[in-house]
Amino acid sequence: MEHTFTLGEIVARLGGELLGDAHTRIEQVAALETAQARNISFFATTRLKKHLDTTLAGAVILHQKNREATQKPRIISSNPSAYFARVTALLNPVEAAIPGIHPSAVVEEDAVIADSASIGPFVHIGRGAHIGERVFVGAGCDIGDKVEIGDDTRLYPRVVVYFRCLLGKRVIVHSGAVIGADGFGLAHEEGRWLKIPQIGRVVIGDDVEIGANTTIDRGALEDTVIEEGVKLDNLIQVAHNVRIGAHSAMAGCVGIAGSARIGRNCTVGGAGMILGHLEIADNVSVSSGTLITKSISKPGAYTSAMPFSPHEQWLRNAAHLRHLDSMADRIRQLEQKITELERKKS
Amino acid sequence: MEHTFTLGEIVARLGGELLGDAHTRIEQVAALETAQARNISFFATTRLKKHLDTTLAGAVILHQKNREATQKPRIISSNPSAYFARVTALLNPVEAAIPGIHPSAVVEEDAVIADSASIGPFVHIGRGAHIGERVFVGAGCDIGDKVEIGDDTRLYPRVVVYFRCLLGKRVIVHSGAVIGADGFGLAHEEGRWLKIPQIGRVVIGDDVEIGANTTIDRGALEDTVIEEGVKLDNLIQVAHNVRIGAHSAMAGCVGIAGSARIGRNCTVGGAGMILGHLEIADNVSVSSGTLITKSISKPGAYTSAMPFSPHEQWLRNAAHLRHLDSMADRIRQLEQKITELERKKS
Amino acid sequence: MEHTFTLGEIVARLGGELLGDAHTRIEQVAALETAQARNISFFATTRLKKHLDTTLAGAVILHQKNREATQKPRIISSNPSAYFARVTALLNPVEAAIPGIHPSAVVEEDAVIADSASIGPFVHIGRGAHIGERVFVGAGCDIGDKVEIGDDTRLYPRVVVYFRCLLGKRVIVHSGAVIGADGFGLAHEEGRWLKIPQIGRVVIGDDVEIGANTTIDRGALEDTVIEEGVKLDNLIQVAHNVRIGAHSAMAGCVGIAGSARIGRNCTVGGAGMILGHLEIADNVSVSSGTLITKSISKPGAYTSAMPFSPHEQWLRNAAHLRHLDSMADRIRQLEQKITELERKKS
Repeated sequence: MEHTFTLGEIVARLGGELLGDAHTRIEQVAALETAQARNISFFATTRLKKHLDTTLAGAVILHQKNREATQKPRIISSNPSAYFARVTALLNPVEAAIPGIHPSAVVEEDAVIADSASIGPFVHIGRGAHIGERVFVGAGCDIGDKVEIGDDTRLYPRVVVYFRCLLGKRVIVHSGAVIGADGFGLAHEEGRWLKIPQIGRVVIGDDVEIGANTTIDRGALEDTVIEEGVKLDNLIQVAHNVRIGAHSAMAGCVGIAGSARIGRNCTVGGAGMILGHLEIADNVSVSSGTLITKSISKPGAYTSAMPFSPHEQWLRNAAHLRHLDSMADRIRQLEQKITELERKKS
Repeated sequence: MEHTFTLGEIVARLGGELLGDAHTRIEQVAALETAQARNISFFATTRLKKHLDTTLAGAVILHQKNREATQKPRIISSNPSAYFARVTALLNPVEAAIPGIHPSAVVEEDAVIADSASIGPFVHIGRGAHIGERVFVGAGCDIGDKVEIGDDTRLYPRVVVYFRCLLGKRVIVHSGAVIGADGFGLAHEEGRWLKIPQIGRVVIGDDVEIGANTTIDRGALEDTVIEEGVKLDNLIQVAHNVRIGAHSAMAGCVGIAGSARIGRNCTVGGAGMILGHLEIADNVSVSSGTLITKSISKPGAYTSAMPFSPHEQWLRNAAHLRHLDSMADRIRQLEQKITELERKKS
Repeated sequence: MEHTFTLGEIVARLGGELLGDAHTRIEQVAALETAQARNISFFATTRLKKHLDTTLAGAVILHQKNREATQKPRIISSNPSAYFARVTALLNPVEAAIPGIHPSAVVEEDAVIADSASIGPFVHIGRGAHIGERVFVGAGCDIGDKVEIGDDTRLYPRVVVYFRCLLGKRVIVHSGAVIGADGFGLAHEEGRWLKIPQIGRVVIGDDVEIGANTTIDRGALEDTVIEEGVKLDNLIQVAHNVRIGAHSAMAGCVGIAGSARIGRNCTVGGAGMILGHLEIADNVSVSSGTLITKSISKPGAYTSAMPFSPHEQWLRNAAHLRHLDSMADRIRQLEQKITELERKKS
């Protein structure tokens, strides 16, 4: 590791209170269980106290309330996991891309590319596109006509951005993501599907991260909008005219159907699905594997997952799922009969 | 917008009955709520009557039965949404690609490319491939050996078509789609998986549209077949030897397992899954999030989704799903006891 | 077909017992129903006996127990489907790639590429990467800095491997797969998400196959590990720090959340989902569409899928799913009342 810091240097840059030897040298971050002398680790949950007791880490980041949980050199922070994220970034800086346009890249006329931007091999940049300062465009990306990409945005290799879409500043897009393909807009006519041209755009705010092979479709008439600070994992489908509110986060394999409006600070667990034209309030948390079929107006957690069982047991139980209505009927009849018997009794 | 038309010109091209000023100039389509004077909008559902009453649109497309629902300049059509699709296409033509082969493209020997086709930068075209008239192949596409692509087909950037696959005419394939990768064919032998080479093809009919990052695997021995007019959204998995009947449509995140045969005019909602070796009749509609585990011989809608609830409520209910069989037993016992009590009573 | 063999030549290469004319010439494999005189087919399940009786195949592969089920020229094998896989490979060899680096490829400094490797057009290979003997890198692949790729590995066009990831020998990666993108690591801080840099790698063992558009994220601190012989279908998401045990196989659209540890010889059906931080024992089989929410310590099959019904029937039954808890209560009350009535009776 070329980037090493003493604890004193770390605290000088990132804040926090230092206890113990400020000259302790740190080369890398590590988990408590695997850390060595030149590593810094963090302690966030009492569940891991046993690992804290035995860790070989040279230093640890802890919350104020745990300041005496170890006597090692340590940094006290009000948010140890966020502090750890910052130390990790400090010790593992993203390699500065070399400014310039690779000779193999093809740049169409009227495209404007900042001198500080780095355009990789086999990149194609369409007419009238704008590429901001210090933008990194990895090998094989395709940037459509009139696309605008804000400063410090980073596109890993083989991202496609269709024409006229807008990306904010400090956006990260991972390989294989496709931004701005046509929404699934079809009119039915005499047994055939007629394509409805999709003339909206995708507009992506600042500080958004988009995972590998995720797809975000352009709007039909209006735009599809991903507000600032949204984090999308891999293989997510965002349909046309969806709006995702600021600072919402979605795990892998999620699907958001057309025109759904998701609030701010929402989370959707892996493979969660949200149907079209729904409104989801701010601060809603959708569990993994959950299908949301109606709008949600109250913050909170929502779930629809069916619990799993050993297959034989599932077979016995699942058979009844197709007869719940008659089960309910039979319970009602039993209640009537009991009432009748009790009445006669008295 | 360079493409503007008067209402009179629109009706002359697309048919329909014109009521009101034929000189009304239209620059773009828009929804009723956001339309301005130079926009044409459409009215299809009475639910939006209030927007029709207040729209600023210069003209509206309506069904015969609503011909007097507004007094604005208007076009009467038997299918307003299809008409709107056509007007949208008229006002937003797909840019004509410039014929020719980009100098950076690599074309292997014996490939035949129509003079009117447009081959983008960094495209690789394999030996013996045939590219039809006016085909557009976007930047970075890879066309395998002996692939055949019909006239007027459009491949957005970074599509891969493996060797020997066939695409019909007027097919649209969005970025990142992979057509013809090996099916998931494995033989088990002494605790290991042995790959079964996949020697079938993918055969795609005319007028098919394939969404971004969708994958369609080649057949094991026979072909995987997508019949004419099928529309597939993004991130769909079509396994080997599947056949999808003409004019069926599937929303994002759908999965179709190996050798399933889907009928004509079927629809599958988002994240619907159809297991392998099933037969689905024509005109079947599978709801979003539904898992189809058996063949379906009757047209109609089919659903398996579990309703969602607030998480705490779900916890209370879900616990019983693992005990439905004993619940059913207890109901049976109650019924016997009641019968017994009633018998003694009489 | 250029590759034809007599039955005698096949048995000489692949073993098995030959019954009938050793000079029978075989050009291709085929299913029993569609086979012709120059085809070899296989018979594995008695369900297909009628096809065996009527097949036009020139030869058939059968198990010892079925050795007299036909009188055609035939090969007796203890594992007919594995034998068929081997014959298929013999008759359909993967085309030997021409060694060498395509002139359009961009190879950064200090990359080491075996002379026998084949590097396609528009490939980008990062600094310090190692490419082994007879490796095939298809058009448009991006191989990150310091990536190592073992001998005889095959990357189809447009695969991305991020920096420092390791691929074993004889690995197959299909188009659009992304290996080593950042895991979804976020710390929450004052209503915003802070990215946790992902400094682990992806380490892939020998004989792994990875499907089209599948994504495997790099680890946060430690590595994501795919052990030898694992087979992953298309559009699968493997999150950071997952470990998948040797010879496990997963069908399309599966998702494995962060830090899950899957055992050896497991299978996951299509769209199965395994939540994060779980441990799944060896020899576990997860059914299609099943969500695994807890660790599984015993081998066997596990299922959570909700059975589908015609939509109207589903509506009637599904309504009760939100009231199972009160249904259970009512059954308990009925039982108490019955007991009471019976007690009074006696």
